[in-house]
Amino acid sequence: MDVRIVTSSYSLLYAWLLFTLLLGHTLGERSTYIVHMDKSVMPETFASHQDWYSAILSSLTDAGPTVSAVVRSVSRVLYSYDNAIHGFSVVLSLDELQTLQQSHGFISAYPDRIVKHDTTHTLEFLSLNNVTGLWPASHYGEDVIVGVIDTGVWPESDSFKDDGMGEIPARDTEGHGTHTSSTAAGNYVEGVSFFGYAEGTARGVAPRARVAMYKVLWDEGGYASDILAGIDQAIADGVDVISISMGLDGVTLYQDPIAIASFAAMEKGILFSSSAGNDGPELGTLHNGVPWLLTSGASTIDRLFAGTVTLGNGLTIVGYSLFPQSALIENMPLIYNETLLACDSSALLSENTYGIVICKGNGSIFRQMRQISVSKISGAIILSNDSFSIDVAHFSSPVVMIDPSHASAVINYAKSSPSSTVSMIFQQTLLGTKPAPAVAVYTSRGPSPSYPGILKPDLMAPGSRVLAAWAPNVPAAKIGSGLLLSSDYNIISGTSMACPHSSGVAALLKAAHPEWSPAAIRSAMMTTADPWDNTLNPIRDNGYDLKPATPLAMGSGQVNPNRALDPGLIYDAAAQDYVNLLCSMNYTREQIITITRSSNYSCSNPSSDLNYPSFISFL
Amino acid sequence: MDVRIVTSSYSLLYAWLLFTLLLGHTLGERSTYIVHMDKSVMPETFASHQDWYSAILSSLTDAGPTVSAVVRSVSRVLYSYDNAIHGFSVVLSLDELQTLQQSHGFISAYPDRIVKHDTTHTLEFLSLNNVTGLWPASHYGEDVIVGVIDTGVWPESDSFKDDGMGEIPARDTEGHGTHTSSTAAGNYVEGVSFFGYAEGTARGVAPRARVAMYKVLWDEGGYASDILAGIDQAIADGVDVISISMGLDGVTLYQDPIAIASFAAMEKGILFSSSAGNDGPELGTLHNGVPWLLTSGASTIDRLFAGTVTLGNGLTIVGYSLFPQSALIENMPLIYNETLLACDSSALLSENTYGIVICKGNGSIFRQMRQISVSKISGAIILSNDSFSIDVAHFSSPVVMIDPSHASAVINYAKSSPSSTVSMIFQQTLLGTKPAPAVAVYTSRGPSPSYPGILKPDLMAPGSRVLAAWAPNVPAAKIGSGLLLSSDYNIISGTSMACPHSSGVAALLKAAHPEWSPAAIRSAMMTTADPWDNTLNPIRDNGYDLKPATPLAMGSGQVNPNRALDPGLIYDAAAQDYVNLLCSMNYTREQIITITRSSNYSCSNPSSDLNYPSFISFL
Repeated sequence: MDVRIVTSSYSLLYAWLLFTLLLGHTLGERSTYIVHMDKSVMPETFASHQDWYSAILSSLTDAGPTVSAVVRSVSRVLYSYDNAIHGFSVVLSLDELQTLQQSHGFISAYPDRIVKHDTTHTLEFLSLNNVTGLWPASHYGEDVIVGVIDTGVWPESDSFKDDGMGEIPARDTEGHGTHTSSTAAGNYVEGVSFFGYAEGTARGVAPRARVAMYKVLWDEGGYASDILAGIDQAIADGVDVISISMGLDGVTLYQDPIAIASFAAMEKGILFSSSAGNDGPELGTLHNGVPWLLTSGASTIDRLFAGTVTLGNGLTIVGYSLFPQSALIENMPLIYNETLLACDSSALLSENTYGIVICKGNGSIFRQMRQISVSKISGAIILSNDSFSIDVAHFSSPVVMIDPSHASAVINYAKSSPSSTVSMIFQQTLLGTKPAPAVAVYTSRGPSPSYPGILKPDLMAPGSRVLAAWAPNVPAAKIGSGLLLSSDYNIISGTSMACPHSSGVAALLKAAHPEWSPAAIRSAMMTTADPWDNTLNPIRDNGYDLKPATPLAMGSGQVNPNRALDPGLIYDAAAQDYVNLLCSMNYTREQIITITRSSNYSCSNPSSDLNYPSFISFL
Repeated sequence: MDVRIVTSSYSLLYAWLLFTLLLGHTLGERSTYIVHMDKSVMPETFASHQDWYSAILSSLTDAGPTVSAVVRSVSRVLYSYDNAIHGFSVVLSLDELQTLQQSHGFISAYPDRIVKHDTTHTLEFLSLNNVTGLWPASHYGEDVIVGVIDTGVWPESDSFKDDGMGEIPARDTEGHGTHTSSTAAGNYVEGVSFFGYAEGTARGVAPRARVAMYKVLWDEGGYASDILAGIDQAIADGVDVISISMGLDGVTLYQDPIAIASFAAMEKGILFSSSAGNDGPELGTLHNGVPWLLTSGASTIDRLFAGTVTLGNGLTIVGYSLFPQSALIENMPLIYNETLLACDSSALLSENTYGIVICKGNGSIFRQMRQISVSKISGAIILSNDSFSIDVAHFSSPVVMIDPSHASAVINYAKSSPSSTVSMIFQQTLLGTKPAPAVAVYTSRGPSPSYPGILKPDLMAPGSRVLAAWAPNVPAAKIGSGLLLSSDYNIISGTSMACPHSSGVAALLKAAHPEWSPAAIRSAMMTTADPWDNTLNPIRDNGYDLKPATPLAMGSGQVNPNRALDPGLIYDAAAQDYVNLLCSMNYTREQIITITRSSNYSCSNPSSDLNYPSFISFL
């Protein structure tokens, strides 16, 4: 649900941003721009790039009477960048921007953008173990540094204990970063759970790797300028892997700060790992579809958070629930009522205050859950098998979702007697469910709008219902209409949770094979990925009625860490290979240099035939 | 709260019972009677006492035309007894009873009665430790058997793991017996809590002792006939200590099944431990004030279940709360409104749906808690220091009780700005609070109505807010107006919780000094009890504005297990000593034999001067 809410509020915010940008243009108001500069033409009179940028910007604000004193005083640099890109982000009026564009060394500028960001049995499911394969071969990622670009971290989390994190950065006020970083490289913590679900030992994919957190998302939202600053610093700090569970939709490569910054990371040998987005199941919805980075989609795992329903006649049905409490429901009245069946009116539901009502699901159960939660009814059984609800629905009332195949048994029993009863048990966790993995409904699908010539996503990793550390000052659950609960661990879903799994595997591979390039690591992960599920059939797609998944949904398949340790063939690629690819597109020189930051690359061998482990053909 | 509810519903039930008994007498309806028989005069023609009782009862139903066929067919024996008493319990009409009274060997009969029943840092507070004193000296009570007369037990509880309990008895459907027996002799269980409160290792006072549970309280309530049957069997089974957290009010010794059965236990060298009742703080409210058993009152301990309130201006106040959830309340509106101050109307409170309202307490906070819980308000701060509420109130909403001395600071801040805010934290446990112990408000006080000549209670033990095992099919907490929660451990209050602490200490003493009589064990516990609290001042009474407690409230003081191991002087007493005491009362021979079960005792030395460790004088 989080996922969807973030998505829709993002769309709204983004529309609003575009509107204000347009408005700003007509009214002379200011906006933030990211400006790319050609540092190779910096005059030698400047001691540093910051001095150069300052001089250029101060000349802007002296530009004449059209720039008011008010604007002048607030025109300011947010960041200067020197690793991910050469340039800066700055608040400018349109007039100032036009003046800046005439400056010597100016390459390009574009408005800052709001970024959207896309959740432990997952490791067992990926067959990581202490005896053989990637964990022992990599010493659990020892000494590899994973730079996580996210909302910050809750450093007191047990998942980060004993971790030499250096100075404590600003805290996580959103939970997302604590979750992603602990998934990639959280330490071992015993006896954790999400209110009794998924109980066990929590740990990250690379538990001995170090996390460097770069907080780029603040309460105000995510901006490209902040993200660039985070990646810029991560590159300067010499991290081995960068993990970023967010992306921008509808931008071309040369306007996408992640595409641009990841090029610099790739040059420095840093594996750049990103998320595909949560806009599936429609095709062409993917972001971060960038040739020089790793793009992960999200899959389900073989775990079900269960609620058990036992009817008064003895029939017991295991369903789905994540209600976060030990609700005691024993022999309560079972209510079947045609007028309540839709469960879409809290007023109607409140006519009963003691009992469990039967509801018929119709698509996602979010609306029903809301009405049940604000009503006075004790709880509900929802007859539904909606995959999306199973992947992301929150349970704020004692509700169990049971498969509609049981509808007649439940309804007939309820109708059989006015004194029919039901008992329910929550906080159960079932392992080994089949089929798994499956493609998650929400995972964004290829082809990549920013460059359809490379098949994206590259692969998929566990993303649905992932348990990881959480910031305790951010609600992890809700009960009823308004009681918000805190938790040190949370179960959430999204490609945001898949990405750090891949980042962790990449960190382990880097520890085991320090000589591998980012392309080699990605190649190893892709060529060894599994196209089969635990029923030994082709992986299915929850977004398409469990039909076999296509590569546009799952890429090469489910990441297989142990097999990736020894992949045989490697499809390697270096910076010039990606430049050759860029040169084959219809980009201007400035657009290409905006990405490459340097005119030292040659465009003499344009080629769309990149040495990539997968390919896409358009018939 | 449980305590009070049990008390009042009991009073109602008891009044109802008396009414129906009278009604039964006039209408010829049947009632259950407990009948005492002189087994020494049983004719030798009977192979067993059961045969004799059957013969007598069948002669009753043949008594003639006044007894209808309907009555005849349902006249039946509930139990026959042969250890606690000689006799039986039986359903009889008044006619039948009158006939029975003429039978050879008949001693006495009285109507069956409804019994009311009266909760781990407590052990640390009692200074029990692994290094010195009673625990190592007694090998933690190894091989001592504690017979618990209660509601049954939840045998799967971790607190009873590895315990050779023999056949599993009927399960606990009320929770009380699981709680009391795990307090007396529960095994070690790590990492338990009541929804985050009192987190730690749970264990009983005598963790290596064995528990034998006699289920005498059923869903229908408690009856004297059942209790007699439980004690009868416990004596036959050879237990070392009997623990019974219940009692009958307003009965004389010879009509009190606990007084009667405990005499037989005393004769067999079994320490009989009981609870004083929860009808304090008024004087003369005590039950189980019986000279030959141990009567425990309830005390508080040095632990506070805390909630912390932080105002928007930074002021932080630690208060009291047991809200069983990690409610996330950060910078919520703080609402001060004169019309809401009483917090006694859920309708008025529901006019606000997001915020924390300030309430002024007035005596117990139960009614306010109820109104807040069924309203839509997020939570409340209640200004109150009511001791009774601190001892027994349930918290079904996010509420913190803070001392009224903070009232002006909180209210002035709330009034200072319409945007004043508050944050609250729950699930905190503070240790070392002072003063402790104190006499609990509710603990029943002496003098003993059934025999005022002996000072009762004998001593007090921890009874308020005791954590112990619980039956998971019985609600342990409630949220809002109707969400019931299950828990394997619960925190409850009452002399029911004090009694098993004393029983556990007695079991340890029995293991350390197998030769000690029940009177010697009681004497050791009483003469070494502490009259001082942890401020080195006389123990105070929560029921009387923290004035120094009198012996009618706390007996000899707070039980001190380690000192009891080596008491120096012992006030011993044997069966004949108690008979001498009985002979000094204005009892008939039949009334005395109803207690002693035998005419072999001599009444030649009547004496009210029992060798007792305490005395009471009436000026």
